[in-house]
Amino acid sequence: MTIDPFSAHRSESAIALDPAQTAVLVVDMLNDFCKPGGAMVLPGYETLMDPQRSVIAAAREAGVPVIWVIDSHRTGLRRDREFLKRTPHCAEGSWGAQVIDDLAPQDDDLRVYKHRYSGFFQTDLDLTLKDMEITQLVIFGVVTNICVRSTVHDAFFNGYQVVVPQDACAATSPREQASSLYDIATHFGLVVASADVVEALTAQRQLTNMAIGSDLEFVS
Amino acid sequence: MTIDPFSAHRSESAIALDPAQTAVLVVDMLNDFCKPGGAMVLPGYETLMDPQRSVIAAAREAGVPVIWVIDSHRTGLRRDREFLKRTPHCAEGSWGAQVIDDLAPQDDDLRVYKHRYSGFFQTDLDLTLKDMEITQLVIFGVVTNICVRSTVHDAFFNGYQVVVPQDACAATSPREQASSLYDIATHFGLVVASADVVEALTAQRQLTNMAIGSDLEFVS
Amino acid sequence: MTIDPFSAHRSESAIALDPAQTAVLVVDMLNDFCKPGGAMVLPGYETLMDPQRSVIAAAREAGVPVIWVIDSHRTGLRRDREFLKRTPHCAEGSWGAQVIDDLAPQDDDLRVYKHRYSGFFQTDLDLTLKDMEITQLVIFGVVTNICVRSTVHDAFFNGYQVVVPQDACAATSPREQASSLYDIATHFGLVVASADVVEALTAQRQLTNMAIGSDLEFVS
Amino acid sequence: MTIDPFSAHRSESAIALDPAQTAVLVVDMLNDFCKPGGAMVLPGYETLMDPQRSVIAAAREAGVPVIWVIDSHRTGLRRDREFLKRTPHCAEGSWGAQVIDDLAPQDDDLRVYKHRYSGFFQTDLDLTLKDMEITQLVIFGVVTNICVRSTVHDAFFNGYQVVVPQDACAATSPREQASSLYDIATHFGLVVASADVVEALTAQRQLTNMAIGSDLEFVS
Repeated sequence: MTIDPFSAHRSESAIALDPAQTAVLVVDMLNDFCKPGGAMVLPGYETLMDPQRSVIAAAREAGVPVIWVIDSHRTGLRRDREFLKRTPHCAEGSWGAQVIDDLAPQDDDLRVYKHRYSGFFQTDLDLTLKDMEITQLVIFGVVTNICVRSTVHDAFFNGYQVVVPQDACAATSPREQASSLYDIATHFGLVVASADVVEALTAQRQLTNMAIGSDLEFVS
Repeated sequence: MTIDPFSAHRSESAIALDPAQTAVLVVDMLNDFCKPGGAMVLPGYETLMDPQRSVIAAAREAGVPVIWVIDSHRTGLRRDREFLKRTPHCAEGSWGAQVIDDLAPQDDDLRVYKHRYSGFFQTDLDLTLKDMEITQLVIFGVVTNICVRSTVHDAFFNGYQVVVPQDACAATSPREQASSLYDIATHFGLVVASADVVEALTAQRQLTNMAIGSDLEFVS
Repeated sequence: MTIDPFSAHRSESAIALDPAQTAVLVVDMLNDFCKPGGAMVLPGYETLMDPQRSVIAAAREAGVPVIWVIDSHRTGLRRDREFLKRTPHCAEGSWGAQVIDDLAPQDDDLRVYKHRYSGFFQTDLDLTLKDMEITQLVIFGVVTNICVRSTVHDAFFNGYQVVVPQDACAATSPREQASSLYDIATHFGLVVASADVVEALTAQRQLTNMAIGSDLEFVS
Repeated sequence: MTIDPFSAHRSESAIALDPAQTAVLVVDMLNDFCKPGGAMVLPGYETLMDPQRSVIAAAREAGVPVIWVIDSHRTGLRRDREFLKRTPHCAEGSWGAQVIDDLAPQDDDLRVYKHRYSGFFQTDLDLTLKDMEITQLVIFGVVTNICVRSTVHDAFFNGYQVVVPQDACAATSPREQASSLYDIATHFGLVVASADVVEALTAQRQLTNMAIGSDLEFVS
């Protein structure tokens, strides 16, 4: 089977990543979302480690900046409006709001602190990327269907080319993983495999959207 | 059977709609997305007419403003960046960018013209709502998983209470309908039935999220 | 005699206008601000006509888009927060919110409607300019010290090169004209003469900031 | 003499500061702008110390939050677009980007880091203030005609009531001080004396704009 008729109205072309214009955004790989004792844990983050590390290593090798997009809620606000809907998490300065050690963030990596799901909402991310002359973004992390997706939305709206390595992302359930990746592939950017991003960064391989299978899920 | 463990970290409470602080946002109910000959048609918009009309009528009766959120692309731009991903649609001033007659938009209704999927992205929607002292939004239209959802994201980020009547929304496929409504119910606002919104607007009925069924779809 | 010590910390270089990347922003040349019977009239707009027309004509000849930035206040808002400070003006759709006939706006010129002093604040101006691949802006109109200046601020913050032809702008008083132009020349862009812009657009003349006179005013 | 005819179209009323809805924004009182050896020093910051300290002390006594708005430029960007116009200053993490010790900032005070002149431009300031339920802002610092003024612009656009204690601000020259305060008083908010703010915070004194003298400068 194929893509649905509405989503099929795509303009699609293969893209090459230019290391001089590309950045990697790692979204919310934080203790509170990944580690035992975290405020809001997504089980099984370990499966993301190999794909994420491979993309990060390829980026560093290619001179592509790695930017940590970090949920961080100021404390002592009278009414953090995100907490009207979600339970408190990622308090500014706490262990929960730190990037997991597994990914070996470096001191001189850029960090962007966000207060809502999107890395762009009332942060300096767009300004900083434009001051870096970045036009292409590789975006992954957790959770696919909320913070990764929200960041992908705003990246596309702001005119960046977006690439999402699907095996470097985890959603709250399999349906949500498939559905958000489908929406991203049809409306926001390219959904690919981490191995493809590695080749694109290190060997100039062109990227195309993965084929969409008969169950509307992605297959490679 | 139940909500997934990550999404379950919700703060939830019933809400009442205050007509003096509520607005209805009707998203992209336009010829190009609904009518034969449109540039990007979602089949079956007719099934939305009764639910949408009932909410719009209840809003007008309660003195709640109805705001038409309208995709409208300026023509003659060198490079409309949405069209790098999607085929052209909703040209400014064209039949395709007009609200469908079925919903009987009125001349003095507010119209907000958007250039990306979200009704808030680089438009005057937030400014206008705040100048109207609106804090609660009923949001519906097409398609659930792209433009409705993108508008819901930004509404929540900007601090509005969001209510989505699910039967007044249509997605590109059943899985995407279920998945986006699930994400909205767990992370952005309330998913309800249109009949509930009508009662909330006309008879002060309180609103709560619909139960989440064993297949992670919504049931009433 | 010279620039003050703080403002002197400038990075300055001559710039050439590339017609393919330049747009002209005409700010608030509206009946309400210019014509007898307007809601908030600045006396003497007539003196601006020759300089403004010459820049507009040169722009049209060079294929540079002319964009009308238009103050336009939606009516019926509960509390237009600009009107908490200023008396009402430029009602949407009214004569007062129309560009003066003297400048012969054309139907297919772009128009951007703003609700605050800055042409960028919660409008689609930045999005539209970036979809046009514009990086350089010639900005003028009324009043120099409020709406022109506010637009210049945001243009600079968003990364555009800004050129202000001083004789195409009028302020609320001579001191305000001199002071805002001084601030623009030292912190936001270039202040030049209209004739210089005409030559830059039609004969590739390079532009530099005007000399700053001994009284901290601009002299040519 | 009086206010000019254009600026005279004001809606004016006395305002009372509600400590529960007020915040103090201290703009750019940083080593690089104040102290010997700073990158861009405004001579004479010492004269601001008594007025600023008195407002800060009154705010702390009234339970009003003091927020430090801090210019802070990320290092290593390919092209910080502010530095295309101004010489480099306030490097992130450096001595130059620290609040001067004279004002005794406290560890648990809020700090907002900005990359352009305005404290609101692509920062979390508006989001944070709204999560604090703040609607009134007392704004002061250096320099009146650039960073203070730019912050005042955006505060007004976003709907805050703005109060500027003039003797707690310094401009790049006397004309710029007078001119920016004039523009603020006529178009953006109230210009008052620090002593008035102290009384407003501690003794509920109502605030009104200072009289505008015959030379269009402010007199008390």
